[in-house]
Amino acid sequence: MAQSTTQSDTYEQFLGKVRRIENLGAGASVLQWDQEVKMPDDGIEARSQQLSTLSAVIHEEFTDEEMGEYLDELDAADLDAEQEAVVREIRRQYERKTRVPTELVEEISRTTSEALPEWKEAKAEDDFSIFAPILGELIELKKEYAHHIDPDADPYAVLFADYEPYIELEKAEEMLARLREELVPLIDSVADSEAELATDAFSGEFDPETQEELARDALDTLGYDWDRGRLDTAPHPFSTGNQFDARVTTRFDETDLLGGLTSTIHEFGHATYTLGLPDEHYATPLGDSRDLTVHESQSRLWENHVGRSRAFWEQFLPRVEKRFPQVDASVEEAYEAANQVYDDNLIRVEADELTYHMHIVLRFEIERELIEGELSVEEVPEAWNDRIEEYLGVRPETDSEGCLQDIHWSHGSFGYFPTYSLGSVLAAQLYASAEEEIDDLEGRIREGEFDPLRDWLVETVHRHGSRYTTPELIEEATGEAFTADYFLEYVTEKYGELYDL
Amino acid sequence: MAQSTTQSDTYEQFLGKVRRIENLGAGASVLQWDQEVKMPDDGIEARSQQLSTLSAVIHEEFTDEEMGEYLDELDAADLDAEQEAVVREIRRQYERKTRVPTELVEEISRTTSEALPEWKEAKAEDDFSIFAPILGELIELKKEYAHHIDPDADPYAVLFADYEPYIELEKAEEMLARLREELVPLIDSVADSEAELATDAFSGEFDPETQEELARDALDTLGYDWDRGRLDTAPHPFSTGNQFDARVTTRFDETDLLGGLTSTIHEFGHATYTLGLPDEHYATPLGDSRDLTVHESQSRLWENHVGRSRAFWEQFLPRVEKRFPQVDASVEEAYEAANQVYDDNLIRVEADELTYHMHIVLRFEIERELIEGELSVEEVPEAWNDRIEEYLGVRPETDSEGCLQDIHWSHGSFGYFPTYSLGSVLAAQLYASAEEEIDDLEGRIREGEFDPLRDWLVETVHRHGSRYTTPELIEEATGEAFTADYFLEYVTEKYGELYDL
Repeated sequence: MAQSTTQSDTYEQFLGKVRRIENLGAGASVLQWDQEVKMPDDGIEARSQQLSTLSAVIHEEFTDEEMGEYLDELDAADLDAEQEAVVREIRRQYERKTRVPTELVEEISRTTSEALPEWKEAKAEDDFSIFAPILGELIELKKEYAHHIDPDADPYAVLFADYEPYIELEKAEEMLARLREELVPLIDSVADSEAELATDAFSGEFDPETQEELARDALDTLGYDWDRGRLDTAPHPFSTGNQFDARVTTRFDETDLLGGLTSTIHEFGHATYTLGLPDEHYATPLGDSRDLTVHESQSRLWENHVGRSRAFWEQFLPRVEKRFPQVDASVEEAYEAANQVYDDNLIRVEADELTYHMHIVLRFEIERELIEGELSVEEVPEAWNDRIEEYLGVRPETDSEGCLQDIHWSHGSFGYFPTYSLGSVLAAQLYASAEEEIDDLEGRIREGEFDPLRDWLVETVHRHGSRYTTPELIEEATGEAFTADYFLEYVTEKYGELYDL
Repeated sequence: MAQSTTQSDTYEQFLGKVRRIENLGAGASVLQWDQEVKMPDDGIEARSQQLSTLSAVIHEEFTDEEMGEYLDELDAADLDAEQEAVVREIRRQYERKTRVPTELVEEISRTTSEALPEWKEAKAEDDFSIFAPILGELIELKKEYAHHIDPDADPYAVLFADYEPYIELEKAEEMLARLREELVPLIDSVADSEAELATDAFSGEFDPETQEELARDALDTLGYDWDRGRLDTAPHPFSTGNQFDARVTTRFDETDLLGGLTSTIHEFGHATYTLGLPDEHYATPLGDSRDLTVHESQSRLWENHVGRSRAFWEQFLPRVEKRFPQVDASVEEAYEAANQVYDDNLIRVEADELTYHMHIVLRFEIERELIEGELSVEEVPEAWNDRIEEYLGVRPETDSEGCLQDIHWSHGSFGYFPTYSLGSVLAAQLYASAEEEIDDLEGRIREGEFDPLRDWLVETVHRHGSRYTTPELIEEATGEAFTADYFLEYVTEKYGELYDL
C-alpha cells in the first residue's frame, strides 16, 4: 500500500514536470505561428531570442537529474497501460536528448540559422554552389548527432527516427521501393494514354478575397470548429496548435483556385487530428499527436481521398460556382481537373498523387547516399537531375527547380521526406477501413455529411494520442499491419479509370 | 586585475540570466497579445496553462539561489553606472519576489482568475453584491502580500510601488490632492460657462472599415514604424511588445469616430516609447521602459497635447474629410469637439482631460480606505456615488456605471489608478520642455512633421530605458523635479480659452 502510494506520487510529480515542459513547448508553437503569420519583419531579432531561450529551458527541464530519477523509479514501478505509454514516450525523448552534447545542439541550431539565408540566396540566384558548403557542414553535424544517439546504428535510420520513431527504416525503405516499382510504370501508362482530361475547369483569375471566403466555406462544410481554430494566410501553409486551439494557414494565388482550396483541405486534415486529441490529456503524450506519418495520413486523407473525390465535387462545385460564376464545369470536369497527372512537373508541392512519390523517392535516395558518404554535396545537382529524368522523363534546367526547391535541408531536416509518402500510404489504408465501417461513406460525402468520417477518425486514431506506437495504432485502427496495398489499389483503380488504362 | 576579471565575468553571467528571464517574459507578452487579439475562444484552457507555467518558471529563475549570489557579489563590486542601474532594478524585483511566499502568489493568482467572471457577472447584472465577497478576499490577500514585502510600511504604499516604484506615495497623494483642489473649481466654472462649443463636428455614423483606414493614416502620419509594429482591434485597447515589435490595438465604434482615433493615438504613444528603447539593451532593464507613470505620460502626451491640439487638427482634418465626406467642420469646430468637457459623464474611459482626474481621485481615495480598513467592501457603492456627486455634481444610478465600471480590481490591481493621473501630469511637464527646446513645435505639427517631437522624446526619455529612476529621469529630461505646475497651467489656459473663463 505504502509502496503503491509512493509510486503514484512519483508518477504524478513526473506528469507535472511533463505538463510543464509541454506547456512551454505549446507556448513556443504560438510564438512560431505568430512569427510566420502576424509578426512585423523586424520583430525577428527579439523573437529568435525568445524562442532560443524557450528551447534552452525546455532542454534543461527535459534532461535534468530529476527527470532521470523519475524515469528510473517509474521503470521499476507497476504502472497501468496509459502510464506506461507516457513513460515510454518521455524516456525515448529523454535518452535521445541526453546523449547529444549541448554544444552540438547549439552548433546545429546556429548552423541551420545561417543555412536558411544561404539557401534562400542560392535559390534566388539559381546557384547551388552558394548553398553547397553549408549543406556539407550540416550533413557532417547531423552525422555526428546521429553517432551520439547510437554509434552502432545506420545514421540515416537515427535521423529518420526523429520524425518517425516507431517505423523501422527498413520498412519505410521497402515501401518506397515498392512505390517506385509500381508507380513508375503506372505513370508511364498515364503519359502514353490518349485519354484527354478536362483540365481547364478552373483556369482563369480568381480574386483572393473571394477565394478566402470559399476556403472558409470549405472549412465550415468539413466541420472545422471555429471556437478552437482560425484561418490565416502564410507563404508556406501549415497547421499548428493543440486540442483547444488548432489553427490553419493557407495561401491564395490568383491563377490557382484549386491550389488554395486543396492546401486548405490538407491543413484542415492536420488541424482536425489535433482537435480530436483528448482534452483531458492536454500537455502529456496521451494528448499529443502520434508522429509525422500519422499526421500526414490525416492531411492526405482529407486532401486526396475526400477533397479529390467525385462525391466531394458533387457537394462542393455549386459552392465554387456561387462565388465564381465564371466557373462553368460539370462535376466530372471538376473531378478531372482536380486529378490530372502532371508527368512533366518538376516541383514536389505542385505534384499530383502519383508523381508526388517519385519526388520523395528521389530525395530519400539522395539523402541516404549523402549521409552514408556515397554521394558528395557537389554531386547533388546532377544526381538529382539524372534521377528525376529517370523517374519522370523530364530534366530540370535549373537548380531552383531541381535540388534547391525545398527548404527542408536548410533546416537540417534529413529523414523527414519519407514521412510524406508514408502518410499518403497510410491515408489509403485508413480510408479503406473507413469505407468498410461507415455505411455509404461516399453518399454521405456527396450530401455534405462529413461528421461520420471525422467521428470515425477521432474514434480510431485521434483519441489515442500517443498511447500506441505507430504500428500498434495502425493495427488498432485498421486491424492490419501497415501496408501499401490499399494505396496502390486506390491509385491503380482511380487513374486506370481516369486515363482509360 | 584578476579581481576585476572575475567581477566582469559575474556581471556577464548575471546579465545572461536576466536576458533569459526577460525573454521568457517577452514570450509571455506575445501569448497575452494573441489571447486578446487572435486566439479562438476555447483556446483559453490551454493558454492559461501555458501562461501560468511561464510565470512559474520566471518566478523560479528570478528568485533562485544563483540570483541571490550574483546580486550579493555585484553589490560589493565596482560597477559602472549602467551596470549599477541593472543591478538596482533586478535587486528591487528580487527582494519583492523573494519576500512573498509562493503559496500566497498562487492564491492571489487563483483568486483573481475567479474574480474576473464574478466581476463580469456583477457588471452585467448590475449587482455589486455578486462581486463584493471576492473583492473582499482580494483586498485581504493583497494586504497580506504587502505585509510580506514590508511589514512596517503603509500597505497601500507597498501596492502602489508595484506600478510606480520610484515615486513616493506621499508625493503622489499630494499631487492628486492638488488636482482635486484646483480642478474641481475649474470644472465648476466650465459647467457654469455660457460658452457654446461646436460639439457635433463628428456626430453621425462612421463605417468601421474606413475608420481603420483613418487610424492607419494617423499612425503613418505620426511616424509609426510598420516594420516593427501592427494595428489590430481589441475590446480593451492596449499596446504591448518590445523595441523590435511594439503592437497597437484599438477599437472602432460606428457612432464614435473620435473615440477610435484618440484611442489609436494614445496607444501609439505607448508603442512609440517602446520603439524608442535601445535595441542593444533588449531584454535587460536598460532596454526596458520605466514604470507606469512614464509610460502613461507618453500615451497622454500624444493623445492630448498632440492629438487634441489645434495644430494637429489643421493637419489631420482634411484626412478625416477625405475618408468621411459627411464631416463638414472647420478646424475650430473639430478642435472644440475633441475638447469638450463632459461634466455629467460617469465613465472614466470616456472622460475629458479635466474630469478624468476626478475619476482617479475618487478611486484612489476609495482604494486607500479599503486597504486601510476604513471602508468596508459593502460601503463601496455608496462611497463611490457620494464622492462622484461631490466632485462632478452627478450621481450614478447603477453600480455598472459606478463602482463596477473598471476591470482593475478584479485583477487585484490596487494602486494602479494613480499612475494614470501622474502620467497626464508628467505629459504636460514634458511637453512644456519640448515646446521650449524644439523650434516652432506647433508649426511643425501643423505641417505634419512629427519627427522632431518623437526624436526629442527618444533622446530625453526613451533611450534611457530604466537606467534612471523615475524622478531622476524626469529631472534629466526636463531639468526640474516632477511637478503638477505645467499640467495645471496647461488645462487652465486651454479650458479658460475654450470656455471663456
